[in-house]
Amino acid sequence: MQVDRPDRGFPAEEFAERTRRCQVMMAEHDLGAVLVSTEPEVRYFTGFHTPFWQSPTRPWFVVIPSAGKPVAVIPSIGRATMSQTWIDDIRTWSSPAPDDDGVTLLIDCLRELCGDGRVGTPMGPETHVRMPLRDLDRVRSAIGDFVDATDIITGLRMVKSEREIGKHRYICNVVSDAFDQLPGLLSTGMTEREAFASFRAEILRQGADDVPYLVGATGPGGVEDIIRQPTDRVIGDGDLLIFDTGSTFDGYFSDFDRNFAFAHAGSDATDAYRAVWEATEAGLDAARPGATTTEVFGAMNAVLQAAGSLGNDVGRMGHGLGMQVTEWPSHTATDETPIVENMVLTLEPGLLWAPGKAMVHEENIVVRGNGPELLSRRAAPELPVIR
Amino acid sequence: MQVDRPDRGFPAEEFAERTRRCQVMMAEHDLGAVLVSTEPEVRYFTGFHTPFWQSPTRPWFVVIPSAGKPVAVIPSIGRATMSQTWIDDIRTWSSPAPDDDGVTLLIDCLRELCGDGRVGTPMGPETHVRMPLRDLDRVRSAIGDFVDATDIITGLRMVKSEREIGKHRYICNVVSDAFDQLPGLLSTGMTEREAFASFRAEILRQGADDVPYLVGATGPGGVEDIIRQPTDRVIGDGDLLIFDTGSTFDGYFSDFDRNFAFAHAGSDATDAYRAVWEATEAGLDAARPGATTTEVFGAMNAVLQAAGSLGNDVGRMGHGLGMQVTEWPSHTATDETPIVENMVLTLEPGLLWAPGKAMVHEENIVVRGNGPELLSRRAAPELPVIR
Repeated sequence: MQVDRPDRGFPAEEFAERTRRCQVMMAEHDLGAVLVSTEPEVRYFTGFHTPFWQSPTRPWFVVIPSAGKPVAVIPSIGRATMSQTWIDDIRTWSSPAPDDDGVTLLIDCLRELCGDGRVGTPMGPETHVRMPLRDLDRVRSAIGDFVDATDIITGLRMVKSEREIGKHRYICNVVSDAFDQLPGLLSTGMTEREAFASFRAEILRQGADDVPYLVGATGPGGVEDIIRQPTDRVIGDGDLLIFDTGSTFDGYFSDFDRNFAFAHAGSDATDAYRAVWEATEAGLDAARPGATTTEVFGAMNAVLQAAGSLGNDVGRMGHGLGMQVTEWPSHTATDETPIVENMVLTLEPGLLWAPGKAMVHEENIVVRGNGPELLSRRAAPELPVIR
Repeated sequence: MQVDRPDRGFPAEEFAERTRRCQVMMAEHDLGAVLVSTEPEVRYFTGFHTPFWQSPTRPWFVVIPSAGKPVAVIPSIGRATMSQTWIDDIRTWSSPAPDDDGVTLLIDCLRELCGDGRVGTPMGPETHVRMPLRDLDRVRSAIGDFVDATDIITGLRMVKSEREIGKHRYICNVVSDAFDQLPGLLSTGMTEREAFASFRAEILRQGADDVPYLVGATGPGGVEDIIRQPTDRVIGDGDLLIFDTGSTFDGYFSDFDRNFAFAHAGSDATDAYRAVWEATEAGLDAARPGATTTEVFGAMNAVLQAAGSLGNDVGRMGHGLGMQVTEWPSHTATDETPIVENMVLTLEPGLLWAPGKAMVHEENIVVRGNGPELLSRRAAPELPVIR
């Protein structure tokens, strides 16, 4: 399938709409401002996009007021890049400044924008505050305790715009194309490390911006651990291989895996593969507006239980997907998040089919009114064998 | 220069020595335990190495007791990988579990290992606590406030072992080789994005594991912003280009940049290039045991001031380098960190040589008893022109 490459970035109206929706929820929660401090949150509201966040040195803040555009409170090294976004009010300091690394500037900004109002920040699952704890304590003692704004952020980010969905569709197609090339790229006698390098290069060649997440493993007749880095182990006849990648286009992720056997596969392994493939089918049937993540989990889990699953260590069977390789919600027995249109989700059923032998499938979907649209190209129903 | 690829990972004795040094400092600070929660800190004490940390879903903890090996308190998805490290005591829970995502397990572990003793965690510059603030508050109310252990962690991580230095030397050599190929890979008529993709592929081809950090820019006669992502701008005659990459081998970074002109360069730009090159020379002379980061800054800054610098937005002129693309310390006017043997550092003088025109050089060194050993291949003293 040909998927045209979408435009980079977003028009200002997209950020204005995100901000407007945030401010509606802030009013419902009686919040005078929301503070965000991590890369995806800052990017979500501003469009500020740089790998510079990998440097832990400097904190970065964005404050969403009750009305008007967000305000950036950032190190001066970011001024030029931030000036190219839709943000007008950019307050900078020269960082690193260990004695006052943006603390006073942030406190003054919150007081100016919020007065005596309540300030929200994400404090719940899958979040953290990206600043030194010592400085966070200083902010809290100056402006009072934060109110947990996790629900506001998840309420926004869990549901994607068509522009965001277009970026997901493109990167999922790129990675699907790269997976389709794998049988011609891999062979027995290669090391895991050589296989990883070959796959990474192919994903980039197909058009990904980057391959931030690539894990996998090989093993005789099956694999145990699905979050491993490659080793110098040489791939041999009868091995199973799993590759799982989160690749990006314009800062949006794919996240799905594929399994292959070399030369031949045992019937236990092919049965396990078929079980997770069928479980994914059940997930595809269940993932529609009105259902919950718990129901999607239940549909997949029933297939795995019937297939004799010995359990799994992953803790869930899929999750949200977006600017991070995993986002809220999670398909678990207790998550109970209502599934709504335009959520981008993974379906990721996995089972232990023998002690120390794991099989995990993963597909990426966007939920539409009449059910899921596949973003990844559906895996083959039978375990592919590379000969 | 041929640099042999070092072994992957570290023997258990390296982790035992890190832990022993930590425990000596813990005793000096009267700490019964130290808690760490971020990727480099967990990897430093355990060897646990996976890109899985990009998923924000699950918290991970390691507790260093006053004696004996560190204890891992982690999601069950990490058990298999952690079991292959030197760690024996691995306590897991099934995550995600929003109601109690390791909080009770962590509190119990701290109480068991530390009793009524004081618990340290990094709370200072360049650190953060990677867990939801709501959960962090629960831990603090159960075990009492943390003591700031930033100095212990920086005291350990700022000084590298020969095995760590070997990994830095290898990746710096790989990236030096890739930079040397650039004149043959780039040409006018390419877009920035094509130039980035070509350079990324070359770094991987030369032997890097990954290229997590790649920024740069082009511009007519000079560039303004050095932390930018590429655009579709077409490179033309008279453009300047800067590429700055943090690439990795076995989880250790290089971090240096190079500047090029296309077809021809103005004398202002070549003068600015020469000024930062000479400033780097001054930094190389100053970076030796007994000096401070402030003296290294001063040596470089004097050259830039004499060259008519209009200032810079970076906030420092280099930094530590290690498992993160930037680490403590910083070369600033006030940092005052004593430079000691086996620190791995960048020298990164930069100046604004005209309004909106920045020039930044960067080299990577390891400090030896008699002065710096260059890890990156020294940049050419005159601005290279790609014709």
